[in-house]
Amino acid sequence: MPASPIHDLSRLCLHTVTTKPWPLATAARKYAAAGIKGITIWRDAAQAHPDGIKAAGQLCRDEGLEIVSYVRGGFFASLDATKRQEAIDDNLRMIDEAAALGTKLIVMVCGAAPGQSLFASRAQIADGFRGILHHARACGVKLGIEPLHPMYADSRSAVNTMRQAIDMSVGLADDHLGVTVDVFHIWWDDHLKADIARCGREKKLFSFHICDWKNQPSDMLNDRGLMGEGVINVPELRGWAEDAGFQGFHEVEIFSNRYWAMDQDEYLKLIIEAYRTKS
Amino acid sequence: MPASPIHDLSRLCLHTVTTKPWPLATAARKYAAAGIKGITIWRDAAQAHPDGIKAAGQLCRDEGLEIVSYVRGGFFASLDATKRQEAIDDNLRMIDEAAALGTKLIVMVCGAAPGQSLFASRAQIADGFRGILHHARACGVKLGIEPLHPMYADSRSAVNTMRQAIDMSVGLADDHLGVTVDVFHIWWDDHLKADIARCGREKKLFSFHICDWKNQPSDMLNDRGLMGEGVINVPELRGWAEDAGFQGFHEVEIFSNRYWAMDQDEYLKLIIEAYRTKS
Repeated sequence: MPASPIHDLSRLCLHTVTTKPWPLATAARKYAAAGIKGITIWRDAAQAHPDGIKAAGQLCRDEGLEIVSYVRGGFFASLDATKRQEAIDDNLRMIDEAAALGTKLIVMVCGAAPGQSLFASRAQIADGFRGILHHARACGVKLGIEPLHPMYADSRSAVNTMRQAIDMSVGLADDHLGVTVDVFHIWWDDHLKADIARCGREKKLFSFHICDWKNQPSDMLNDRGLMGEGVINVPELRGWAEDAGFQGFHEVEIFSNRYWAMDQDEYLKLIIEAYRTKS
Repeated sequence: MPASPIHDLSRLCLHTVTTKPWPLATAARKYAAAGIKGITIWRDAAQAHPDGIKAAGQLCRDEGLEIVSYVRGGFFASLDATKRQEAIDDNLRMIDEAAALGTKLIVMVCGAAPGQSLFASRAQIADGFRGILHHARACGVKLGIEPLHPMYADSRSAVNTMRQAIDMSVGLADDHLGVTVDVFHIWWDDHLKADIARCGREKKLFSFHICDWKNQPSDMLNDRGLMGEGVINVPELRGWAEDAGFQGFHEVEIFSNRYWAMDQDEYLKLIIEAYRTKS
């Protein structure tokens, strides 16, 4: 049975990329003024903040916002061993940045390398996690593997289902490694309900992203929909996550050329309305 | 271990949609002249033939071509019961057309309806098959469920993995219902090798389509690649099908605005070269 609509904003979080035209300081001020309680910061937005990463985190807290996560690490797969080591080094730096920012979670887009099998990429991804988990633990930063839609298996991620993400995080046996669920990527999976339940039982359900899959999107990357605008039953999937014990934020992450082109204040009102009534 | 390249053309089949600019009579003549032995006919190409469906089949046989399959039936899912019945009626007609054409297989794109759950669509798909299998059997025409890539789950098919297609064909317990494998749709699946093996054990591996998934395609529908042009290890997947007992044609099905825009005689040479060396 689908969960009932949400109504209040106490668990709403926005990703800075959702309102990409706004710099971080503007986004934080606007989100807080609208009654939103959480912010997830994209790395480019944090790095573009003129006063540095630590100040970026402070300005969000000064607005009363919790920094839910830092996006996005990973991209471990490469045919070139030097590049694989560079990816590990970069992820170690990103963990430092997350700690400076004051968030406890980095979302991981694992990577895939055209020119080698997905099995090879997955082995390199596991090696990547082995190379950074000690530092994540030392810094108190968790890592959420985000399974990406199979249409991104060519070059973005060789981890494309909840089952794979759970298996990898359980297999690496580290309580700092878990799963980030994004309804856009996994809504089609006929085993999804059982996989979300298992993810909860394994204590691996670290975060939860929402948006919608529009019917026949015009673009593979930047035509995501607002909740209710497409084919995903967001309330039902949210209910499955909550049945699995998830009590964290509902993070709105929308890549959309159409929405980025509109007045962002008007767009923010649409997001909040869609969240209240269709999530 | 990947299978070795193919070299000879005795099992090569082309889909008429691959060389869409050519009418059926031209396609059949050109394929045969190039040494190709199989043709799969799209319904619009057959229906556009001026002398009717039966004559369309005869002209292919006169060129020495085997008609490997007729594409594509299905589209059973709808919120509207009248439309579901119309889909069943249309599939019954398509079975008659396949018999008139002289082919023993129809490829089925099962359908999905935005506005209802994928579970509801799948139940309607099963009902659709129950409504037509008696006629398929009577006409000696088999039906191959083609699992479609999850990026088409919104409105084209609620059957998106090999496992689902096998489960559905086994569940309906009819030897005229099986599976059509297209590497484009399922290459990303980490359970693919085991699923193809199971498909063979269950005697459900009815046909096999090849092309390639280009790295970051420019279009969700019409930017497929020639074999070797993208990220799919076609020889490996072909080897898995052959290990599972598959001995049928390798059907080249490519939707590509780029290739449709080029000289089709030149394109046919590229297809044959890619088939000989990269499949």
